[in-house]
Amino acid sequence: MTRRTGGAANTRKIRSHGNAIDQLPFKQVINPFTPLEIVSADELESIHQTSLRILKEIGINFLLPEAREIFRCVGADIDGERVRLDPELVEASIALAPPSFKIHARNPAHSLIFGDKYMNFGTIGGPPWVTDQDRGRRYGNYEDFCDLLRLGQSLNTAHLTSGYPVEPDDIAVPVRHLKATMAMIELTDKVFRIYASSRERILDQLTMVRIMWDMTEEEFENHPCVHTNVNANTPMQYDIPMTWGIIEMAKRNQPVGITPFTLAGAMAPVTIAGALAQQNAEALAGITLTQLVRPGAPVIYGGFTSNVNMKTGSPSFATPEFVKAAIITGQLTRRYKLPFRSSNTSTSNIPDAQSAYESQTSIWSSVLSGVNYLQHAHGWMEGSLCASYEKYILDAEMLQMITEVMKPVIVNSDELAFDAIREVGPGGHFFGVSHTMERYETAFYHPLLSDHRNFEPWAEDGAQDATTRANHIYKKLLSDYEQPPLNLAIQEALNTFVRKREDEGGAHVY
Amino acid sequence: MTRRTGGAANTRKIRSHGNAIDQLPFKQVINPFTPLEIVSADELESIHQTSLRILKEIGINFLLPEAREIFRCVGADIDGERVRLDPELVEASIALAPPSFKIHARNPAHSLIFGDKYMNFGTIGGPPWVTDQDRGRRYGNYEDFCDLLRLGQSLNTAHLTSGYPVEPDDIAVPVRHLKATMAMIELTDKVFRIYASSRERILDQLTMVRIMWDMTEEEFENHPCVHTNVNANTPMQYDIPMTWGIIEMAKRNQPVGITPFTLAGAMAPVTIAGALAQQNAEALAGITLTQLVRPGAPVIYGGFTSNVNMKTGSPSFATPEFVKAAIITGQLTRRYKLPFRSSNTSTSNIPDAQSAYESQTSIWSSVLSGVNYLQHAHGWMEGSLCASYEKYILDAEMLQMITEVMKPVIVNSDELAFDAIREVGPGGHFFGVSHTMERYETAFYHPLLSDHRNFEPWAEDGAQDATTRANHIYKKLLSDYEQPPLNLAIQEALNTFVRKREDEGGAHVY
Repeated sequence: MTRRTGGAANTRKIRSHGNAIDQLPFKQVINPFTPLEIVSADELESIHQTSLRILKEIGINFLLPEAREIFRCVGADIDGERVRLDPELVEASIALAPPSFKIHARNPAHSLIFGDKYMNFGTIGGPPWVTDQDRGRRYGNYEDFCDLLRLGQSLNTAHLTSGYPVEPDDIAVPVRHLKATMAMIELTDKVFRIYASSRERILDQLTMVRIMWDMTEEEFENHPCVHTNVNANTPMQYDIPMTWGIIEMAKRNQPVGITPFTLAGAMAPVTIAGALAQQNAEALAGITLTQLVRPGAPVIYGGFTSNVNMKTGSPSFATPEFVKAAIITGQLTRRYKLPFRSSNTSTSNIPDAQSAYESQTSIWSSVLSGVNYLQHAHGWMEGSLCASYEKYILDAEMLQMITEVMKPVIVNSDELAFDAIREVGPGGHFFGVSHTMERYETAFYHPLLSDHRNFEPWAEDGAQDATTRANHIYKKLLSDYEQPPLNLAIQEALNTFVRKREDEGGAHVY
Repeated sequence: MTRRTGGAANTRKIRSHGNAIDQLPFKQVINPFTPLEIVSADELESIHQTSLRILKEIGINFLLPEAREIFRCVGADIDGERVRLDPELVEASIALAPPSFKIHARNPAHSLIFGDKYMNFGTIGGPPWVTDQDRGRRYGNYEDFCDLLRLGQSLNTAHLTSGYPVEPDDIAVPVRHLKATMAMIELTDKVFRIYASSRERILDQLTMVRIMWDMTEEEFENHPCVHTNVNANTPMQYDIPMTWGIIEMAKRNQPVGITPFTLAGAMAPVTIAGALAQQNAEALAGITLTQLVRPGAPVIYGGFTSNVNMKTGSPSFATPEFVKAAIITGQLTRRYKLPFRSSNTSTSNIPDAQSAYESQTSIWSSVLSGVNYLQHAHGWMEGSLCASYEKYILDAEMLQMITEVMKPVIVNSDELAFDAIREVGPGGHFFGVSHTMERYETAFYHPLLSDHRNFEPWAEDGAQDATTRANHIYKKLLSDYEQPPLNLAIQEALNTFVRKREDEGGAHVY
């Protein structure tokens, strides 16, 4: 125990931050690690070939006639809603998609590259529920929607807003996309995601983004600056609103993520290889469509294969099966030279130890899978059904830690410190030597949330667990939040558009 | 939300376990992953060369005269307590140590290989405090000591007992090693670790192990069946009891772990490269001694470089610096072809989310570092100062999950499931198809601790967090515990030895 009560605490006061929250700076993360490969090249090829066979022999239902027409024009086999694709068409199409691209943020310091070795951490997108320690679990509403956006803006680990952080259920559906997009524009200056929930809505949102950038349609097409995500209606089906999302986004050269939600044992085979073959078939079909709409359109391959819990029938996340599927999906996306999206998942119903070890499973495996876009990286609980304020902070700490792990270690004469070791000698200590004094302020990672005090001072200070400390930190971040400036003319133009659309009654459902 | 309420829960009852705790079977873990390398071969060589220079120019204090005499006989430079070693001696000595070896357990099913791609998870060793939710934090005592041993015996993730799971402070020091070793023999049939806390004690413990095996001294030397760990007295010093441990264990061909505790910024340089150069010098000195005592003696290279928190002066664990040090130590041990030991660490004062994300950081990085022996893998809290019953279970779940992650994925025609995918077709589901029905019981990992139910049934069932559930699981494991059988004659021989030593007053302190 004596080593826990060294003199360093008394003799050193390091980086007095006042009340500010100590964060790493906002920065794109570069993943230096060689990705894991857990299936051989031959095995990967057999997954790929099975996917091609699914597309050729079974086919995919595209419920949108316009999409079938696009496929028909390039000679695909159309049978009712069923579209069957030749391997040559699929291979040629996916080869057109760019391996990486930039999405511009309205604050240029927050623009992001997707692809290569870059790794972007998003916020949660789409849950119906929201929770925190003070107010408990409740339906999503506009106030929480805005506060979670603010939290995403304030946390430097959040590279982008990955959708509605919670569904603002108190906003009428016809105008919800207008209000929500307005808030994403006003409250953050980071990249954000719009929703492919109907053609009318995606066009409204694209218009708002274009107004925000004060661009012509033509300029907009040369300037990817917003993205959406499209889930296949697994198994092997694309619905009408999502497919409109693919078409309208790709047409304008705005990035689309294509993410089958292949839940092994329910909507996909109970085997990992089978679920992946199906995931891959569904993804390749969606990606092919993007390239038929506009060759070279930016697209992200989303992997989201997990499994049901066979005792309860519930979807389970961050399972060993999820990890293996993510690693193999990484192998597939590198084969296809496409940016790879995965998620920071947890099935836990509370921001507890389970939520932490499940998120770490997701985060570490995403690094090893070569993920470029970690969706839901902040705040995700209950397997997508609930956003947690405290989990935002738990996740931010885990993401900061992994970011630091990915920073290179310097090995040179100064760092090897032979002279300092000689100066100290056997039985000495390094507290006071110049090699330490010159470096101690910046030598080590400073935690955002972790408490590294001994038990006694921690207990005397209230014995708070990590979740309770996270509660204090999120409140401090919200109280320190500053809304990023927005050009007044643009603000007014956006207001005018939103008012006009509200006066028209907003968007029709579906 | 609808996807969370599928029919599977109602239509399927899977593996009714009654009240038994659902665990993976006891099995040696093989790590199939290619270890990460974060420094180049040249950089690794410069760390190695700096270590050799430390040993040659600065030297190590060996406080035990017998050790200095061993070094003197092979031509080392002895100056008072200081021992300076030529690179040739060090290189030649470490080359003699075996790359892998088996440690026999009294239950042969629990014998373990150390080295190669094998990965063994130990229990916590050595904390003065113990805690659980019901009784709070208290000094270690014999009752908890025994219960934690029972827990280690019952958990299949615990491959071995890695020392006293808590210090049995209510047992008088002179006889504590006798009682403790007796309990490790009686309550478990797994490999265990004895303590190098004085020559007399290590000889007592070795005698007890030999009696347990009913072996002559000569047979014992051909049968590694117990191990110890030796920490250097960083910086660059070995004390007398620890050095007796090296000598007496190596002499009998029983494995020794050599583990410098190089805390960057305190007892080692503030830089990772410098702390590692020093760790490596200290480790190589200890390993060299084992090989001078007995060429070919089994030895484990222990890496334990972490850093102090520069705000509080407290040691911090599972930090990004800890991770990088572990990965580079893995690179060093592979260069030396030695088994590698690291630890499952956490600085948290409570089994909360922090304890979980810190342990996951340790566990995932140990897998990527190619660790062969994960010491403290169950129950470690407060940076080594406290054993937690609930943390045992949290760790067991994380270790089960990573074990499953390391199991190979099968890719063949059956697993690729093309026929099942065709059978289901677009818009269908896989619940009832034969491909699912034939596999659903064993397709996925069954959690030990994680709760994958939806929020509502979880809340109705008491809304227990993972730590509270862990509390119930550890109690169930203890109530189900069965003491492994021990030959009565051996039991009596051991009792006789212990009584004799007690009558002699036990061991003198130090």
